[in-house]
Amino acid sequence: MLFLVRMDVHIPHDLPADQANDIKAREKAYSQDLQRDGRWPHIWRVVGEYANYSVFDVASNDELHQLLQGLPLFPFMKISVTPLARHPSAI
Amino acid sequence: MLFLVRMDVHIPHDLPADQANDIKAREKAYSQDLQRDGRWPHIWRVVGEYANYSVFDVASNDELHQLLQGLPLFPFMKISVTPLARHPSAI
Amino acid sequence: MLFLVRMDVHIPHDLPADQANDIKAREKAYSQDLQRDGRWPHIWRVVGEYANYSVFDVASNDELHQLLQGLPLFPFMKISVTPLARHPSAI
Amino acid sequence: MLFLVRMDVHIPHDLPADQANDIKAREKAYSQDLQRDGRWPHIWRVVGEYANYSVFDVASNDELHQLLQGLPLFPFMKISVTPLARHPSAI
Amino acid sequence: MLFLVRMDVHIPHDLPADQANDIKAREKAYSQDLQRDGRWPHIWRVVGEYANYSVFDVASNDELHQLLQGLPLFPFMKISVTPLARHPSAI
Amino acid sequence: MLFLVRMDVHIPHDLPADQANDIKAREKAYSQDLQRDGRWPHIWRVVGEYANYSVFDVASNDELHQLLQGLPLFPFMKISVTPLARHPSAI
Amino acid sequence: MLFLVRMDVHIPHDLPADQANDIKAREKAYSQDLQRDGRWPHIWRVVGEYANYSVFDVASNDELHQLLQGLPLFPFMKISVTPLARHPSAI
Amino acid sequence: MLFLVRMDVHIPHDLPADQANDIKAREKAYSQDLQRDGRWPHIWRVVGEYANYSVFDVASNDELHQLLQGLPLFPFMKISVTPLARHPSAI
Amino acid sequence: MLFLVRMDVHIPHDLPADQANDIKAREKAYSQDLQRDGRWPHIWRVVGEYANYSVFDVASNDELHQLLQGLPLFPFMKISVTPLARHPSAI
Amino acid sequence: MLFLVRMDVHIPHDLPADQANDIKAREKAYSQDLQRDGRWPHIWRVVGEYANYSVFDVASNDELHQLLQGLPLFPFMKISVTPLARHPSAI
Repeated sequence: MLFLVRMDVHIPHDLPADQANDIKAREKAYSQDLQRDGRWPHIWRVVGEYANYSVFDVASNDELHQLLQGLPLFPFMKISVTPLARHPSAI
Repeated sequence: MLFLVRMDVHIPHDLPADQANDIKAREKAYSQDLQRDGRWPHIWRVVGEYANYSVFDVASNDELHQLLQGLPLFPFMKISVTPLARHPSAI
Repeated sequence: MLFLVRMDVHIPHDLPADQANDIKAREKAYSQDLQRDGRWPHIWRVVGEYANYSVFDVASNDELHQLLQGLPLFPFMKISVTPLARHPSAI
Repeated sequence: MLFLVRMDVHIPHDLPADQANDIKAREKAYSQDLQRDGRWPHIWRVVGEYANYSVFDVASNDELHQLLQGLPLFPFMKISVTPLARHPSAI
Repeated sequence: MLFLVRMDVHIPHDLPADQANDIKAREKAYSQDLQRDGRWPHIWRVVGEYANYSVFDVASNDELHQLLQGLPLFPFMKISVTPLARHPSAI
Repeated sequence: MLFLVRMDVHIPHDLPADQANDIKAREKAYSQDLQRDGRWPHIWRVVGEYANYSVFDVASNDELHQLLQGLPLFPFMKISVTPLARHPSAI
Repeated sequence: MLFLVRMDVHIPHDLPADQANDIKAREKAYSQDLQRDGRWPHIWRVVGEYANYSVFDVASNDELHQLLQGLPLFPFMKISVTPLARHPSAI
Repeated sequence: MLFLVRMDVHIPHDLPADQANDIKAREKAYSQDLQRDGRWPHIWRVVGEYANYSVFDVASNDELHQLLQGLPLFPFMKISVTPLARHPSAI
Repeated sequence: MLFLVRMDVHIPHDLPADQANDIKAREKAYSQDLQRDGRWPHIWRVVGEYANYSVFDVASNDELHQLLQGLPLFPFMKISVTPLARHPSAI
Repeated sequence: MLFLVRMDVHIPHDLPADQANDIKAREKAYSQDLQRDGRWPHIWRVVGEYANYSVFDVASNDELHQLLQGLPLFPFMKISVTPLARHPSAI
């Protein structure tokens, strides 16, 4: 079951740099684990913004929320979720 | 080069049904041709809306505009385009 | 799997009254069938508006889209869908 | 009398963690007391967001405001309230 | 129980004038009946707009919806409702 | 001459509590003085929000601005003002 | 007492041209009468739009509403009104 | 003096095709005359939309309004104008 | 050449009071100099807000930007500029 | 391939002045290098705002993102990107 997810990152400028770097490193590892297991099939950078559009493939709303809430950057992101369905013109 | 495109369709209710059906049939064929040649790799229905999110893979902005402007439903759609780049965490 | 759905109805004033009444009668029957089989557990009127907030309980995004797209009033509604998950404080 | 309530939580990142945890623990207890006495019949997590949609069942606007204002997280939430009425198609 | 209600009127310019005038005359009578029985204690014109802000005093959300839905201009209005509570500084 | 005024209060969480309490106490006294002299005939709490809708009855725009600017909470409020006129259906 | 007023004109394209021209001619005369008697001291075109920003100088909200409601183009305009006060830095 | 201008075109679908084509042909000629005389130095299509971003180089606000108001498509466009100044980093 | 300018002031509450007062005193002097030399013909307070609507009369966009950028409160203001033209109904 | 880019700068007022000045100096040098090599052909100041509209000429979305992300002011800017195509009326 597919969902389009947009994430906008806003890290406060007074967060210490090493703390920010640690969060970003953990975020990257967390994301790549999910990409490898097939639940995060697409992640694209929005040009010019500290933001991404992603597609998630999960079994339920609850599973999606657990994945998103577990993101190390979750406290610093605005996330919006759009449920997707099969399009009748898709081949 | 990838672009995320959202299309919202608004067909006026006083458009004759056969005219609407003809446009939709041509739209479907047009879309499937582009899916087959690889320039429209993803098309998803937005749940609950007469709308889709699509990903296009084209060589230039001009090529993308030609494709979108050629959609039979173009006069009845609101389209918004977001340029995408490779995400540093993508595997 | 739960979804909160808001539907705003806009019937054009030049739609013939008998056609409108027929659509509304079919909408009511369609809704009550889904309420009875458990997939549309809540429907509430938004006070002062020709709109409702509803909760749907379905197995997938695709099933939800099929249900919503089948609404007789679908061509005359603006629908927005919010996926819900279990809240950690829910008893 | 039913109301749909959306609550978006924004805890400042410089609030000390133990203070934040204490507020959240009290929020959970407060919410569960109201769920048990029947005045907060539904609480759902919005997928991907630190937010919930809830339904309250109270005798008056004043009672609802007292309940919401008493939430330990009240100073850190954006709340919006939609009054609900019985829907003519509800079974 | 008080509610602030804003009503914006949009009568289509192709509605026949006598039909519009009839609706407006019935709207006025309907409003004055409710003002006299105490359920519509305030109605003010928004300066420069075909709109009003009103205060309603009713026993329930359902009663308010019945009153608003019964307005002869209801099909031509955009209505928004804000529930009000007693303010702690009110004398 | 009547005006509808909405005030949304946002007190920064790092404002010392005694300073905030002092401002709120002065705000309450200031408001009650104006209610007593008839220039602030209505003040209602917006349910679920740290906000109010009020009606002011003043002789001029300048008088209204003086009253609002003098509010002890003025630096911490977002205020919007809507001029009201007599409604032709008011009894 | 001064008010800033913005008026956006939207004449439906299917209004017969002579009817539109008649309304515009009456609008111009109406506006110039009010400019001459001092109640409409400023009227400026918004560059690129069929819209104006105007300043009105009237004795009350009710007088302003009477003037605006009497505009021949009133049924085809979106009007927004901002009350103005003397600025402390004005010389 | 430079201005950035965005124009969004909305031609009603019930405008006869030959009338629409005539307007578009005159629009093109009008635009190219101004491009040639240097007052409309840039015109770009917004990808995916029936819209353009343009830069105008004129001597005054009044001149710009005359040019825009004279566009054959003016009655069918939403136009927004942003005044530009020399940027201190421009070479 | 006339421009309507709206300025909304947001001074952070942790800016030291003497620093804020110094900026405001310089802002007032700066404004009055421009009012006296005719380039800032109107300045009005927006009722209920720490904001003003002003009219500027300058020879070019660049001159206007220099004036606005030089405002002592510039770093603490949100400014929006609307170019104005002569209205055909102005007497 | 052309893109219109709007950048709004928001430097926190508690960023030390020498740090801010250093960033701005590097921003200017960075911008002028790109102007000289032809990839940033236009940069204009938005009148009255700490913002610019720019046109970039790049070979791909990825190249554009690399350029924008490398801006020394990137962490303090809100950036929005609009892809442009050749306009059929351009000479």
